[in-house]
Amino acid sequence: MFKKILIANRGEIASRIIRTCHSMGIETVAVYSEADANAPHVKLACEAYLIGKPRVNESYLNVEKIIEVAKRAKVDAIHPGYGFLSENSLFAKVCEENGFVFIGPTPEVIEKMGDKLQARLAMEAAGVPIVPGNSTPLFELEKAKEVAETIGFPLMLKASAGGGGIGMQVIQNMNDLEKLFDGNRKRAESFFGNGAMFLEKLIENPRHIEIQILADHKGNTVFLGERECSIQRRHQKVVEEAPSKFVDNQTRKNMGETAVKAAKSIGYSNAGTVEFIVDDEKNYYFLEMNTRLQVEHPITEEITGLDLVEQQIRIAFGELLNIQQSEVELKGHSIEVRIYAEDPVTFYPSPGKVTKLQLPTGENIRHELAIEEGLDVSPFYDPMIGKLIVTSNLREESIEKLARALDEYEIEGIKSNIPILKEIIRHPEFNKGNTTTSFINNYLSLSHK
Amino acid sequence: MFKKILIANRGEIASRIIRTCHSMGIETVAVYSEADANAPHVKLACEAYLIGKPRVNESYLNVEKIIEVAKRAKVDAIHPGYGFLSENSLFAKVCEENGFVFIGPTPEVIEKMGDKLQARLAMEAAGVPIVPGNSTPLFELEKAKEVAETIGFPLMLKASAGGGGIGMQVIQNMNDLEKLFDGNRKRAESFFGNGAMFLEKLIENPRHIEIQILADHKGNTVFLGERECSIQRRHQKVVEEAPSKFVDNQTRKNMGETAVKAAKSIGYSNAGTVEFIVDDEKNYYFLEMNTRLQVEHPITEEITGLDLVEQQIRIAFGELLNIQQSEVELKGHSIEVRIYAEDPVTFYPSPGKVTKLQLPTGENIRHELAIEEGLDVSPFYDPMIGKLIVTSNLREESIEKLARALDEYEIEGIKSNIPILKEIIRHPEFNKGNTTTSFINNYLSLSHK
Repeated sequence: MFKKILIANRGEIASRIIRTCHSMGIETVAVYSEADANAPHVKLACEAYLIGKPRVNESYLNVEKIIEVAKRAKVDAIHPGYGFLSENSLFAKVCEENGFVFIGPTPEVIEKMGDKLQARLAMEAAGVPIVPGNSTPLFELEKAKEVAETIGFPLMLKASAGGGGIGMQVIQNMNDLEKLFDGNRKRAESFFGNGAMFLEKLIENPRHIEIQILADHKGNTVFLGERECSIQRRHQKVVEEAPSKFVDNQTRKNMGETAVKAAKSIGYSNAGTVEFIVDDEKNYYFLEMNTRLQVEHPITEEITGLDLVEQQIRIAFGELLNIQQSEVELKGHSIEVRIYAEDPVTFYPSPGKVTKLQLPTGENIRHELAIEEGLDVSPFYDPMIGKLIVTSNLREESIEKLARALDEYEIEGIKSNIPILKEIIRHPEFNKGNTTTSFINNYLSLSHK
Repeated sequence: MFKKILIANRGEIASRIIRTCHSMGIETVAVYSEADANAPHVKLACEAYLIGKPRVNESYLNVEKIIEVAKRAKVDAIHPGYGFLSENSLFAKVCEENGFVFIGPTPEVIEKMGDKLQARLAMEAAGVPIVPGNSTPLFELEKAKEVAETIGFPLMLKASAGGGGIGMQVIQNMNDLEKLFDGNRKRAESFFGNGAMFLEKLIENPRHIEIQILADHKGNTVFLGERECSIQRRHQKVVEEAPSKFVDNQTRKNMGETAVKAAKSIGYSNAGTVEFIVDDEKNYYFLEMNTRLQVEHPITEEITGLDLVEQQIRIAFGELLNIQQSEVELKGHSIEVRIYAEDPVTFYPSPGKVTKLQLPTGENIRHELAIEEGLDVSPFYDPMIGKLIVTSNLREESIEKLARALDEYEIEGIKSNIPILKEIIRHPEFNKGNTTTSFINNYLSLSHK
């Protein structure tokens, strides 16, 4: 097994990866910016190296510096976590060129899945259902209008290089398209350096449901059930649950097998997530593939009993999958909420010192924390305080337990989104499982929008 | 189901019971002494009633006052937790007489198992292996000498009404017996109001291994595997694990079936624990039966996926067991350590204000907390800070994870036994599973004894 792993990340995910390394007997190397000198991940790791100023370009995105530390600390492998360099194929390549195993899929696969249009083409070729739309890049309004005519309105206009909701626009009619196409194309060009656009049929009141997969280097691939991630604000997930109340056994099996087919078709290895958009009739369409660990991976761990980071490390080391599809057993119901330092009314980040942090405890309560009492939530990064994961045998129990845990959660010194989370969790429509991506807009009190 | 339950306890177990009630949709009533006005269990419960002064006789042992609150709050049932009134058959009886369901076995069963000699006789009659010794009470030295002759030395002299190590004395030879018998008998008489003594063969380097059982009112009874509780200091458990590294599948099955036989023979209902003393050759002998929830119950919950408090409540309500023996699946390995406010060198309690409490977090880390930051550990009660429960697939992983979690655990303002716990967990003999009841005496550095 690897002797030493560098974690090219910060916050809760860095701590989470370090803990699994340690329980596997693997030494850990943390990197940190000047803003993170006292961060939990720095204290947890066996070694820690300062890599630069707070701004991400000078630290957590600084490939050269990270590789330099990897050499100095003589690590065997690099875990990129999520965000930052995790889906940067160039970084994956540079790791390999310098003799470090990149814990994730190959650079080629990362690159292919990182480009929305390439991904769409690959999936189409593999027979994976995709949202009706064009499969060759659009650069001109006239071409776009032709495509729009064939698909019909409403449509979604997307930048090929976008993601996470960035570079997306709803188009209700031809007039909208005429007004908006060029502006969006130009923005994509300046934001992503790539102005390729595409159009997709808009799925109304859609659900966002994703399938976790694991694949080894020999192509053995399993799926680990779904995660319901529909509750989003500005395309950022807020509450995730596994399994989805909406997904029945047959749909689960179909979606899972589709995700496995998708992964196999591109020679995927390591942990990955195939995101689907699902309509009211349970038709599902490929949305994108995330070639890394997801923020919400713990809920899958809770219902499968697997440690996904351990699986990632074993696969990256070259081990074959130690679990077969028939052995994957989904047990219980797990919900994660993302607790952020943000104003619950304006949604602005609320950085500053956490003067008190008192966590709910008890059975089946899991915390993945980005900070600790007495430390600052930095204005330089994602203002996550932590993730709270609650698991029970039944969904109703998990909801009740989570609501109580949020009542017990005490944070002082900064504002947090806990009031919003409470409102979501206690909402009768959440209870019914009416969790579409419009949930927050449709059901939350105005003060939170 | 019950609408409202009174929890006649304090500390971590009161909070733990309240949480399960809430996730079952049951309202809760806390009781508290003047010393506990700000205690976590008081804040967690739906209602809370002051029942008296800090001294336990005036509050947590004050049956009259607790029944008065139960009436005032119109509860359906009373959960006694562990300690305090949990094994007081009179209290169980008074509950029932006043129309409240006592969440535990019947008063008759509590009484029978509370008397060591009665329990021994009952088990002998049921064909449960017991440590060779006398089965009728001894009050005279001459009789004791006759019995000692037949069993052989070394022996253990025990007060029938004793328990938890109180009223026990090792007897190496006839000379010892002559010197010590009368003194012990008189002490038992004055301590317990009962001078009945008995003699048992001393099992050297014994292990203390207990079986968790569940039984409903119809006599359906299952066992939920064992807990290894050998690591004790002055007969108080310090570290518990499930399963025991020492117990093989056949022994587990035999011990489990014996425990079920024991429970059935006395008409046991609700959750209970049959404690065994086990010798090097895996011979096991009945030690005592605890007719209540044990401190260390969470490790069984972790490896079975059951909520034992929920099971207790359902059984008390009259439901039949919802699990059969063939469905009990033991998965993974769980370890609990008891974190106490005590000086790690002198073992004296270290009450006072907890100025900082920072908990380790992450996957499969469970906390059951008796206090919170900013509150005092009271000198009036058991100085428990909390229980830390760590679970993994393999014992080695759990040990590693627990050791790391203890490193991360930060308590300021008071002393704690964490240094001792770390030494135990990291000890090579613990790793090997050499966990006899002499572990702390044999292996820990002198400074901790």
